Order: sequence, then structure tokens, then C-alpha cells
Amino acid sequence: MQRQGQLYILSAPSGCGKTTILKQVMANIGGLAFSVSHTTRTPRSGEQNGVDYHFVTENEFKEMREQKLFLEWAEVHGNYYGTSKVAVAEQLTKGEDIILDIDVQGASIIRDDKSIEAVSVFVAPPSLTELEQRLRGRGTDSDEVIAVRLQNAAKELAAVSAYQYLVINDKLEDAVLVMQSIIIAERSRARRLVSGIPVDLEIVT
Amino acid sequence: MQRQGQLYILSAPSGCGKTTILKQVMANIGGLAFSVSHTTRTPRSGEQNGVDYHFVTENEFKEMREQKLFLEWAEVHGNYYGTSKVAVAEQLTKGEDIILDIDVQGASIIRDDKSIEAVSVFVAPPSLTELEQRLRGRGTDSDEVIAVRLQNAAKELAAVSAYQYLVINDKLEDAVLVMQSIIIAERSRARRLVSGIPVDLEIVT
Repeated sequence: MQRQGQLYILSAPSGCGKTTILKQVMANIGGLAFSVSHTTRTPRSGEQNGVDYHFVTENEFKEMREQKLFLEWAEVHGNYYGTSKVAVAEQLTKGEDIILDIDVQGASIIRDDKSIEAVSVFVAPPSLTELEQRLRGRGTDSDEVIAVRLQNAAKELAAVSAYQYLVINDKLEDAVLVMQSIIIAERSRARRLVSGIPVDLEIVT
Repeated sequence: MQRQGQLYILSAPSGCGKTTILKQVMANIGGLAFSVSHTTRTPRSGEQNGVDYHFVTENEFKEMREQKLFLEWAEVHGNYYGTSKVAVAEQLTKGEDIILDIDVQGASIIRDDKSIEAVSVFVAPPSLTELEQRLRGRGTDSDEVIAVRLQNAAKELAAVSAYQYLVINDKLEDAVLVMQSIIIAERSRARRLVSGIPVDLEIVT
């Protein structure tokens, strides 16, 4: 049987350990991948078209945008980035669960789109104090940058209640277990499985 | 912080391994207990009032039933069994997640009661053929009893789509992981957590 994948929208303030959590979850359980975005920026060495990004020209991108083919898009440092509805749908059809790493505004747009059935997850630090310590500990950001990140984090945290799940990254291994459990649980939703269980159990409703 | 527990209603055809799965899940994660039923039957040796059952007289039971104090009740071999709303509420207030082991009819009644927020889980065998083999393998039931159990299982399976989650017990360790994941995921629901996260993250909506 070919299961349809599930789309996850995932948001986290900078420094919450989202990437580390996801890497471990992906290593622990299969069938999970990031969405592949469209971008107008030049491929970096080693980047493969269709794997790392779908590389397109600015004209192609704007054409797609006109036709409302993106779930969401953004301009960053003069380059465009967007998540194509068709690209995500194709990944989901393969039976993979897809993670769309997106900010709270983008997540809000996708949640409001009733044609998209996404599971939303927010990764939060145990506290803003702890987040500040982690950002300082990385030693990569100036005081000003840290102050901006903390302000943004506080704003983003105000949106938590609009998400379905909240993963608090206090201890990494606990956060990995919770993230992984959310995905396993969502895969066990009865409405998702009743059409896919063995023939002699098939349900007629 | 004192988290409010979550009520789970769990149904499974006989022979699906529900008890084995739950024992392992309870050993793996804390904060999970069975609901304590009221019964009119005589305590067996070693059974403690308030722990194994709330032992009551038939008059007391009928009085409670009159007053609609039971989530559900049943008469089995001349004894009454019932799940008291107050007893469950008390267990939930302690912060424990409570599992109510209940048949599909009882589960349907509880789902229809909008005052109760229960998460529903159905444990199914991988197939009826496999269930038949397991029942025969136990060597405890006559052919007639097995035939009845399989008929009942087929009827119960028709109700699967009304449940939120479906745990298919093919390999025990996979079923344990799924059951455990459902509970961990449900504990991470944002709506359940936003009032309980640390003060400097508290959300004002």
C-alpha cells in the first residue's frame, strides 16, 4: 500500500535547536524529508537541482508567484525563495512526510489555507533566559544581534497557541523523543490508516 | 506546575494484545494509570478498595446510576461495573493520564458526551486471519468461542474510523512504540502546554 505523506509546518525562534532535533529524528525514523524550495539564487558548489533546491530564474519565479503556485515565498538578500504547492504535493505522493521550516507568519498563511492539511509544530526554548544563554554560548552573535533575536523570539512565542504541538527543547534527547512521537502518532491517525489496513480488515463506512 | 491528566478511551478486540502493550508502555513512561471502576462484586484476595476497584453495594451502585454519575456502566455475570465521572476526574486532577479500557459501544457513548475530552485509541490485529491464529495459539478457547470472538472482532473493527488513533499490533515492539508515541504527542499539544510553560514564556492571547 502507498501511504500519502503528511505535511508538517515547523517554526522555532533562532537558537532553539530545531535543526539538531530534526537531524536526530530523521536518523531515528525513516520517511521524513524537508520540502525542496524554489530559489532564484545561484547554486553553490555541490548543490543539486531538485534535491537541495529547484533553481529557477527570476522570471520563472515571478511567473509562478503570479499564478499563485507557492504555498509561501520570501525575498532574502535580493534572492527569492518559495515553496511550490506542486513540489510539496509530489513529495507527499511518494509517501514521505515533509517538513516545511517556516516562520510564524508563513505558518499562519498555510494554516488559513483550508486546502492544505498541515500538522503544525513549534519548537521553543525552556525560557527566554535559557535562550539568551545559548545564543551567548554560541559566541557567533554580537550583543545587538542577540537582543534582536530575543525580541523576535518573544514575538514568535506569542504565536505558540496557534500551533497544534509545542516541543520545548530543554534536554535535547527529550525534545527528539517528543518530535519523533508526534510524527509516529500522526502516522497512526485512524482516518489516515483505515483505507490502508489489510484487506480482511477493510472498513466499510 | 500541575498538569491536568488526559483521559484515553481504549478499545480492542479480544486477543489483540492490548494488555501486553499497555503494561510495556506503563513501564516505559510514567504518569499513566488505568481508571479505577466501581463494582458490586466481592473483593478478591489482595484487591484493595480504591486501588483495584471502588467496592460498593448494589444499592449504592444503582443510586449512582440513577444520579447519572457513571461515564458508562455494565452488568456482567450478575455484577455491576461502572466508571464514575468523579473518580476519573480525581485521577486526572492528580496529573495522571488515565486509560479507560472500554468496548466500542461504551467508547461511542463517551465520544458523544461533549463534556468529556477523551483521546480514543483502537488496537487492531494486523488481520482477522492473524487474530484467529493467535486465539488458536493461546489454546484456551474452544472453536465455538473463537468463532464468536472473530465475529465480535469483525463487528468492532467496523467502528475503527470513529477513533482518533489506530494501533495495529503486528510486531509487539512497534505497537508499544506507537502507543507510547501517541501519549507523548498528546502531552505536547500546544493548547495543553501554553498555560504551563515557564513564566517568561507565558503566552497572553
